[in-house]
Amino acid sequence: MSLTFTHETLGQRVLFGAGLAAGHLAAEVQRFDARRVMVIAAAAERELAERITAGLPVALLHDDVAPHVPVGKAEQARAAAAEHDVDLLVSVGGGSTTGLAKAVALTTGLPIVAVPTTYAGSEATNVWGMTEAARKTTGVDARVLPAAVVYDADLVLTLPVELTVASGLNALAHCVDSLWAPGANPINQTMALEGARALTVALRGIVADPTNLGAREQALYGCYLAAVAFASAGSGLHHKICHVLGGTFDLPHAQTHATVLPYVLALNAPAVPELAGRLATALGHPPAAVGEDGRAAAAAMLNGLPVVEPECPAAAAVAALNRLRRDLNAPAALAEIGFTEAGIPEAVKRVAAAAPASNPVVVTEKNLTVLLTDALRGAAPTRPYQPVPAPATH
Amino acid sequence: MSLTFTHETLGQRVLFGAGLAAGHLAAEVQRFDARRVMVIAAAAERELAERITAGLPVALLHDDVAPHVPVGKAEQARAAAAEHDVDLLVSVGGGSTTGLAKAVALTTGLPIVAVPTTYAGSEATNVWGMTEAARKTTGVDARVLPAAVVYDADLVLTLPVELTVASGLNALAHCVDSLWAPGANPINQTMALEGARALTVALRGIVADPTNLGAREQALYGCYLAAVAFASAGSGLHHKICHVLGGTFDLPHAQTHATVLPYVLALNAPAVPELAGRLATALGHPPAAVGEDGRAAAAAMLNGLPVVEPECPAAAAVAALNRLRRDLNAPAALAEIGFTEAGIPEAVKRVAAAAPASNPVVVTEKNLTVLLTDALRGAAPTRPYQPVPAPATH
Repeated sequence: MSLTFTHETLGQRVLFGAGLAAGHLAAEVQRFDARRVMVIAAAAERELAERITAGLPVALLHDDVAPHVPVGKAEQARAAAAEHDVDLLVSVGGGSTTGLAKAVALTTGLPIVAVPTTYAGSEATNVWGMTEAARKTTGVDARVLPAAVVYDADLVLTLPVELTVASGLNALAHCVDSLWAPGANPINQTMALEGARALTVALRGIVADPTNLGAREQALYGCYLAAVAFASAGSGLHHKICHVLGGTFDLPHAQTHATVLPYVLALNAPAVPELAGRLATALGHPPAAVGEDGRAAAAAMLNGLPVVEPECPAAAAVAALNRLRRDLNAPAALAEIGFTEAGIPEAVKRVAAAAPASNPVVVTEKNLTVLLTDALRGAAPTRPYQPVPAPATH
Repeated sequence: MSLTFTHETLGQRVLFGAGLAAGHLAAEVQRFDARRVMVIAAAAERELAERITAGLPVALLHDDVAPHVPVGKAEQARAAAAEHDVDLLVSVGGGSTTGLAKAVALTTGLPIVAVPTTYAGSEATNVWGMTEAARKTTGVDARVLPAAVVYDADLVLTLPVELTVASGLNALAHCVDSLWAPGANPINQTMALEGARALTVALRGIVADPTNLGAREQALYGCYLAAVAFASAGSGLHHKICHVLGGTFDLPHAQTHATVLPYVLALNAPAVPELAGRLATALGHPPAAVGEDGRAAAAAMLNGLPVVEPECPAAAAVAALNRLRRDLNAPAALAEIGFTEAGIPEAVKRVAAAAPASNPVVVTEKNLTVLLTDALRGAAPTRPYQPVPAPATH
């Protein structure tokens, strides 16, 4: 039982509260003693931004926001910030809007208060990204981490269920992959498992009733934790696979994540039984309440029915994830979203070359082929894969 | 299910690794590009400090450290820092040493890299304290939070078991009280429960074998999380009770914490069943594996024996804490450590006046009297107290 790791906790203030965005925002503007606020919000969020910043010392509202933060847009926003001599950035919107605020902070050092209106998670990381001529540049810089984040479930209440489920499963993939990513450590794992717990409750609740504000809050909370854990732990095997499937085979992002995750879990979980058990619980695996199960088993035996065998933690985790996917109507097979058997050898080669050394199971062309073949067909991994021994050198 | 809270995450880098203190310290000194390091270490840790800072650009080693950071000592250390034009503080020691480094950082803004040699936890907080003429002043300031902490279990390996158990139970009390303290929130609760899990494993391991390095690492990790959670959540009912018992009745700090904790848990747990269930698991309550319990219950029924009733989460948490205390030989009764029945009315009055509004159960003179009477006698709360209804106004 060795405990050797380095963990960098990012200092940030988060304020959760449904219906409280305007109040929380005002308190933060006051805390920064800001006099000239630059509000960044896309045209679609302009009205919302005006409403929640009413009464604040807004120097300008900048709505020239575009996806993936084109460098030209970033430069215009920086020029506007300089021209208006602003002292605080307030972003109201999704990932592109937060991203533009980060681009301004990167060169100006201005603090950001972020008000997310999606489940993107970018507001909880120190990662920035910009695009120029379709080429993306990313980096890590302490200056781009928003100083404060105002989470208000009212602002995500009207996001469509399908989009919410896609974002939520994407965040869940961040949580699960954080467990064995290169920067995995007990602190990230703890945050990731709490995120998985919140997302499970949230997504089931939102699918059952899209107007369930409490479930929307849990979704924001879960996505926040997923971003914190993933930003710290980095990309694990799951993200390497999805990156290849998206980049080389052009499969859709969210659906690919939702489809591949249980197969990666089935591969890795047997090698990390303690984490698998905690994940099973987080994913809503029914806690085996002593009396209840005792009575059920007793009744089964008395009626001549088979008594259920105890589940191993890995099997429980996989089963719990599959139940969740089914309940959310997530796609179950890569064949449904454009992948074909012909692509498997190429995908296997590319993933094998990129597989993180931190993966708890040695990744081989053989087990990747099994994994992708199962994922292609949507053959639910009803039991975890057996760990494949390390390959002979060749 | 409402989720309204504010949480401030303190930015800090932690480096865990047994035997790695010198290497981790060198890496941090390089990261800060420090040229003139002031090492603060008491005489008892001087040799250790010299060993792990060998090869670093040490401008001076300051060993004039005293308990509770007397203001005079702080001023001398600040003068020494100025005289030697230092650019980084490295503290090697327990709470008093870290405290002196904080006092220097408070006025100079110099960054601190802390190397703890006890389980004090002060290295993970932004709280400083100084004493003058037996009067203690404390405050909260971002500048005193160590920028980095180097945790090395080798440095705590020789701490006596009794002291380790006392510190560990004190940290466990921080974890448990964080669940319902004024600043309690899901993030603090998650860290606190992970801390409780680590401390439980650690203390059992250290008592079984004081040379168990893995258990010592878990203890450092658990104490770190306890400090993080408690610094953010603040003092709950447990700490208010212990503060009164220590301040008014002069009971010993660590033993008082160890004795009172299960009684506070028994009072509060029934009002927070979900947290109680998670705490029970963290404290090592045996997970009720489906099959096993099923078979046991089935066998019991078939043999005409009574089937064990399912435990409620609150009872499970209290039982788990009592088992842990017993296994650690912790004191079980306030009578053993100097409290008497005559003190109860005064203690009840003082605690009732200080009880936090955040406590999940309304605190009354009546339930406090029951609690302190049980704790006096060491009557193990075999089942949780029933929540007492709010008192009529009088």
